[in-house]
Amino acid sequence: MADTNTDTVSATPVTLLGLGDMGTAFARAWLAAGYPLTVWNRTAARAEPLAAEGATVVATAAEAVAASRLVVVCLLDDASVGEALADADLAGKDLVNLTTGTPDQARARAEWARARGARFLDGGIMAVPPMIGVPESGGYVFYSGSGALFEEHGTALTVPTGAKYVGENPGHAALHDVALLSAMYGMFAGVQHAFALIRKEKDIAPKEFASLLVGWLGAMSGSVHGIAEHLQSGDYTKGVVSNLAMIVAGNPTLLSTAEGQGVSPELLTPYLGLMERLLAEGHGDEGTTGVVDLLVR
Amino acid sequence: MADTNTDTVSATPVTLLGLGDMGTAFARAWLAAGYPLTVWNRTAARAEPLAAEGATVVATAAEAVAASRLVVVCLLDDASVGEALADADLAGKDLVNLTTGTPDQARARAEWARARGARFLDGGIMAVPPMIGVPESGGYVFYSGSGALFEEHGTALTVPTGAKYVGENPGHAALHDVALLSAMYGMFAGVQHAFALIRKEKDIAPKEFASLLVGWLGAMSGSVHGIAEHLQSGDYTKGVVSNLAMIVAGNPTLLSTAEGQGVSPELLTPYLGLMERLLAEGHGDEGTTGVVDLLVR
Repeated sequence: MADTNTDTVSATPVTLLGLGDMGTAFARAWLAAGYPLTVWNRTAARAEPLAAEGATVVATAAEAVAASRLVVVCLLDDASVGEALADADLAGKDLVNLTTGTPDQARARAEWARARGARFLDGGIMAVPPMIGVPESGGYVFYSGSGALFEEHGTALTVPTGAKYVGENPGHAALHDVALLSAMYGMFAGVQHAFALIRKEKDIAPKEFASLLVGWLGAMSGSVHGIAEHLQSGDYTKGVVSNLAMIVAGNPTLLSTAEGQGVSPELLTPYLGLMERLLAEGHGDEGTTGVVDLLVR
Repeated sequence: MADTNTDTVSATPVTLLGLGDMGTAFARAWLAAGYPLTVWNRTAARAEPLAAEGATVVATAAEAVAASRLVVVCLLDDASVGEALADADLAGKDLVNLTTGTPDQARARAEWARARGARFLDGGIMAVPPMIGVPESGGYVFYSGSGALFEEHGTALTVPTGAKYVGENPGHAALHDVALLSAMYGMFAGVQHAFALIRKEKDIAPKEFASLLVGWLGAMSGSVHGIAEHLQSGDYTKGVVSNLAMIVAGNPTLLSTAEGQGVSPELLTPYLGLMERLLAEGHGDEGTTGVVDLLVR
């Protein structure tokens, strides 16, 4: 008998362990796309709505693992992964770990999976749950580890959100994830300082100021490519317009302004200090790229 | 006798004091557009090439001020402005100060100019010299102070680069300038930390990583509008997807990753610490906006 919905019929069965906000969002995306889905969650109540939407709910993680070759894990932390899978038979499984962790944890977990006969792919999710299942949200997952696994299951893995494979080293997805988050925190720290500077000025509207900030940061983020050029070439002067000597000459204006506006400079001073150290070490004609090397031990 | 180039004939005469890289770029833009330009620089040699391009070069700042009603000053710092203009007759002049300084310096300089009979406009240049005279560069100057002056001379002032008028308070141009620079330094600090994290990984190319970083920071900068919403409404929970409790739960992963990669966390820890303090004070269900208030004394 012919089936008109061949996509549904041929979709890879998926097992998903962990139904927090993120896991649930992934589950809904697979169900919506017609993927056979088996789910398990430590607190069973979280699985009930998904059962009504077509998921097979099982009582133990081991059962869930047994149900599909492709096993996706999205738990609280790396220790939870070890606990949940302690009694599961991973031989011949394709284990995809979306649990947030460090690169070292991902590398150790990859070894652990290999020892149990599974292929392993680690993922770092660059999205919040409302972005999952919404292709235009721009969300994606960094994947690293088994390229063969990624190639075989790429279709299923890109159903909930986009995917960027960053190599065989299983720690590199987490490293990309944490590095991008860290850069974002720096940007937010700078933004919070900027808002603090205008906080007491009744005739500067934060919303209008926000538009100026976003436009400026977007325009200036292009300099990131220049830093990458420096790091790859080793020439930290190439293309530099405002050199370190000129930048550091402006530091007192930034600090005096903070003081005049009654704002603690604590989010700014570490970076200004590193630039001053770099200048003192004789790099005044370079850009700021040398700060990277000051940070690496 | 009819003149076909009425623009040139009707262009406002401009006096410019200060021919550093930035002043010279402004001078060239006015000359190229046919503005009668009088220039002065402490070191006269800097003016010679401009004389060949049509500028009138004079020997003293007082002479330069006498030559035009619109007087633009672009010197090293605020003290240089006071020194250069000490002997000039400012009565009836329209003084535009592009010299980098703090909001307090701009406010004091506005008082000083008013006492000498001049209207005053302060400017904060959001561009580097190569962007001046290049409309598509996106550069611009924040102006604040006399709205009447800005209205009268807006055409001349927007010849070298774009202009954004931010109100009568003469300190607000400098405040916007410093606030945007400070936010940018935060972003660069985060970016340097991110590059440090991948510095020893031979199979992560900085240039490819830079593209990921720029895309991510651009996507995430939209959150700046949410912070502005919070500050204007006073409701710091509105629209929050990842609340402070969830964000702070991830801090150990950021710090462990830095440690694992041999990277000093010094650019990250002040911000993480402020978020932890905010959480400890009971704001776990809010976003990070409260950090702004922690910074303001």
